[in-house]
Amino acid sequence: MNWQQKITAAAERIRPHVQQTPVLQTRGFGLPYPVELKLEHMQHTGSFKARGAFNTLLSQEVPAAGLVAASGGNHGAAAAYAAHQLGHKARIYVPEMAGPAKISLIERTGADLQVVPGAYANALEQAQAYEQETGAMQVHAYDAPATVAGQGTCLAEWQAQGLAADTLLIAVGGGGLIGGAMAWFQGARKIVAVEPETSCALNAALAARQPVDVDVSGVAANALGAKRIGSICFELAAAQGIDSLTVPDSAITEAQTALWRERRILVEPAGATALAALMCGAYRPAPGERVAVLICGGNIAPDPLG
Amino acid sequence: MNWQQKITAAAERIRPHVQQTPVLQTRGFGLPYPVELKLEHMQHTGSFKARGAFNTLLSQEVPAAGLVAASGGNHGAAAAYAAHQLGHKARIYVPEMAGPAKISLIERTGADLQVVPGAYANALEQAQAYEQETGAMQVHAYDAPATVAGQGTCLAEWQAQGLAADTLLIAVGGGGLIGGAMAWFQGARKIVAVEPETSCALNAALAARQPVDVDVSGVAANALGAKRIGSICFELAAAQGIDSLTVPDSAITEAQTALWRERRILVEPAGATALAALMCGAYRPAPGERVAVLICGGNIAPDPLG
Repeated sequence: MNWQQKITAAAERIRPHVQQTPVLQTRGFGLPYPVELKLEHMQHTGSFKARGAFNTLLSQEVPAAGLVAASGGNHGAAAAYAAHQLGHKARIYVPEMAGPAKISLIERTGADLQVVPGAYANALEQAQAYEQETGAMQVHAYDAPATVAGQGTCLAEWQAQGLAADTLLIAVGGGGLIGGAMAWFQGARKIVAVEPETSCALNAALAARQPVDVDVSGVAANALGAKRIGSICFELAAAQGIDSLTVPDSAITEAQTALWRERRILVEPAGATALAALMCGAYRPAPGERVAVLICGGNIAPDPLG
Repeated sequence: MNWQQKITAAAERIRPHVQQTPVLQTRGFGLPYPVELKLEHMQHTGSFKARGAFNTLLSQEVPAAGLVAASGGNHGAAAAYAAHQLGHKARIYVPEMAGPAKISLIERTGADLQVVPGAYANALEQAQAYEQETGAMQVHAYDAPATVAGQGTCLAEWQAQGLAADTLLIAVGGGGLIGGAMAWFQGARKIVAVEPETSCALNAALAARQPVDVDVSGVAANALGAKRIGSICFELAAAQGIDSLTVPDSAITEAQTALWRERRILVEPAGATALAALMCGAYRPAPGERVAVLICGGNIAPDPLG
């Protein structure tokens, strides 16, 4: 697959619909070196997920029944938003554990929202039943080429904005975003995967040399808590031999606090996870190595403005 | 006074100490036209005030007693931060009405903080007594040339970043920031002053043709609630004949909510005041007129991360 071509085409396709997000060169966070931040939490619906959702909807025929998705939050919000903007129906199954902030975020997109008791698997089951019954289109949260190519546009955009770093740290849930990064850079920049110790599907897969189920919990679980890494991400990561690190929940919370206290960037725990790897020393750049952190999601709970 | 020269010199002087803040081209907020945002709330201590504070401390000899300031919050935090970074002592008198979020912001800078019962005037009185007793340097929050020139660097920076807009909307408290904007642009861009109806010292001064005392209250009072506009700002505004608008508190709160909901920009009411003028129709751009909004402060209370 020619990923760079796919990502370039995706960028062209979604350009009128997505927000170009700003880049910040900064110092702080107790680090003795500068850090470049891509503020992708300012994307529509508060995460990079809008990119993959628009690319999916714009690169294939959408049935009259519209789309259906099961999501713990950010993907569901993005899919519902993209569908609404493009004039399609959207049915979103959200597990109750997503919490009121993310549920109301999806509600505001105008989607037909179904809150399902229990966890993600229960929501997915109902979404699949709805798909079979109505012919609605499933939008996969991370493990489909159109999704990965859409997320990859975030990196293509960053490069066009003058990305200076040698090394990019990216938080991993199911692997859509880092998959897009690996697909775009093809080894031209060093990519470091960062996962919470409590939700580390890629780390476990690389150790097992194949995707395996993991238990998920912890502060970032409602965004990074994929039970199994996507196969597209896994194959790219194994082929490219990328670094995979885990960080404790306490480091994530500290990074989240530092982003707000020092730079007035308020994000959810997932959005602070990659920075946590620098702050807690899980990743230590070599002398002169320039590092960048992708701030991937801002949907904090509880919603600070209620 | 050659303001542009002063601002250029200030920019050079403070460059190693301040954050270059990002610019965002965006759509939304219910507006049928795009808006350019300068995200100055990402400045050190969460507002543009750090620029004036660094410029003041770097352009004159600081006595051994350090600096003293009276401030309802943002100026005090910025002065304390700048002093700490440059190795000076800082004594900050804060009126109790500033609230716990801004008080703890100042505390974190390491300043010697004195919380004074009552309002700003009481804090100012104590600050003046301390100055007389110790020889500490007063840093004026808005009505001193070094302060205005420092704030003006925000606009010089924006212009260097490719500011495209014809018209800039800027919130006004005591007039340091908009003073810096008028001083920098000298009529080359249209500048619109926006004040809360509940705290509108510039609007009242322009009507009276001289600075007059006003009552201050409302959602943005702890940042924009100057009782009298600074004379530097007043003279520039009168000479340039700038537009002066007021907005109701409800419009400010709506703009604050929209910035967070649509773009994950969380700011205090003062930081949303200029955008409110567009959203509530107090300012309606002509067809084709490109508008920009300076997001000036992010120190929301209560602190969302406690």
